[in-house]
Amino acid sequence: MQFDLNRSIEILSRTPFVIEALLNGISEEWLMTNEGENTWSPFDIVGHLIHGERTDWITRMAIILSEADNKSFTPFDRFAQFEESKGKNITQLLDEFKTVRKQNIEILKSKKINAKDLTKKGIHPAFGEVTLEELLATWTTHDLGHIAQIARVMAKQYTNEVGPWKQYLPILEK
Amino acid sequence: MQFDLNRSIEILSRTPFVIEALLNGISEEWLMTNEGENTWSPFDIVGHLIHGERTDWITRMAIILSEADNKSFTPFDRFAQFEESKGKNITQLLDEFKTVRKQNIEILKSKKINAKDLTKKGIHPAFGEVTLEELLATWTTHDLGHIAQIARVMAKQYTNEVGPWKQYLPILEK
Repeated sequence: MQFDLNRSIEILSRTPFVIEALLNGISEEWLMTNEGENTWSPFDIVGHLIHGERTDWITRMAIILSEADNKSFTPFDRFAQFEESKGKNITQLLDEFKTVRKQNIEILKSKKINAKDLTKKGIHPAFGEVTLEELLATWTTHDLGHIAQIARVMAKQYTNEVGPWKQYLPILEK
Repeated sequence: MQFDLNRSIEILSRTPFVIEALLNGISEEWLMTNEGENTWSPFDIVGHLIHGERTDWITRMAIILSEADNKSFTPFDRFAQFEESKGKNITQLLDEFKTVRKQNIEILKSKKINAKDLTKKGIHPAFGEVTLEELLATWTTHDLGHIAQIARVMAKQYTNEVGPWKQYLPILEK
């Protein structure tokens, strides 16, 4: 599928509601358990998505669209959520995610991005030149990846409980 | 996590709403595209989940809990949805899924399943004896697996569009 801004916004606007439908009001056992050492629980993942809204996607878009000479992005902190989510419950995190995502989609739409804008570039700290189109496609894909991750982390809590059906459930091997 | 009926119902009752939040009203490009030959689109997956509600989980539970001598399950048809979903749109499928899932959760609750019931067995066509607990854990895990699959199929539509970020998006390699 070719990149399309409106189709990307379809995903970006749905993600907080998808995750809310899955996690809001659910037991701690589903919410706070991860896949093992150095992996994330569903709760951690929601915090990560919020941190991305605050420091990554829109910030990097602004750099790309700016007239600044230096188009280098600040590296993203993949562990910020462990501090930032402390003392919050999942309802608070989901509300925060819905709010910042809504604001960011409004900012995105307000830029009236055209085909030429999509080709503009920024400098990624690890792999150099990237275009606005790639950034926006990644924002969209990143959402879907984390929805899949949340479902996988939860599925794995029943790895042993499914007995011989394990062989029919590829999610448990991922 | 140990199997728990109420915690399983938490997932089973959420799944239709999670998938509705993701798919209802979305473009055909996201909905009808798969991962390549012999793979399923999000639309196909919803049909598969409906077919499971109609012919698999509750039917097999009834066999396990019955006094019948023959506890063999009928093999599940993994391709039935291609015929059954024909001529329907996604809103119809999502409504159907919500309805049959709600009915099935009511049947499940009405059985007042106790610890002894969970150890009762049926005969799976491929791997023989399975317990009710394993069946119900699989029903739950199967939901989560297909939520992850839907997100993955959609993510892959932007495999090339994300440019060098592909290496940071493990969902695109699955």
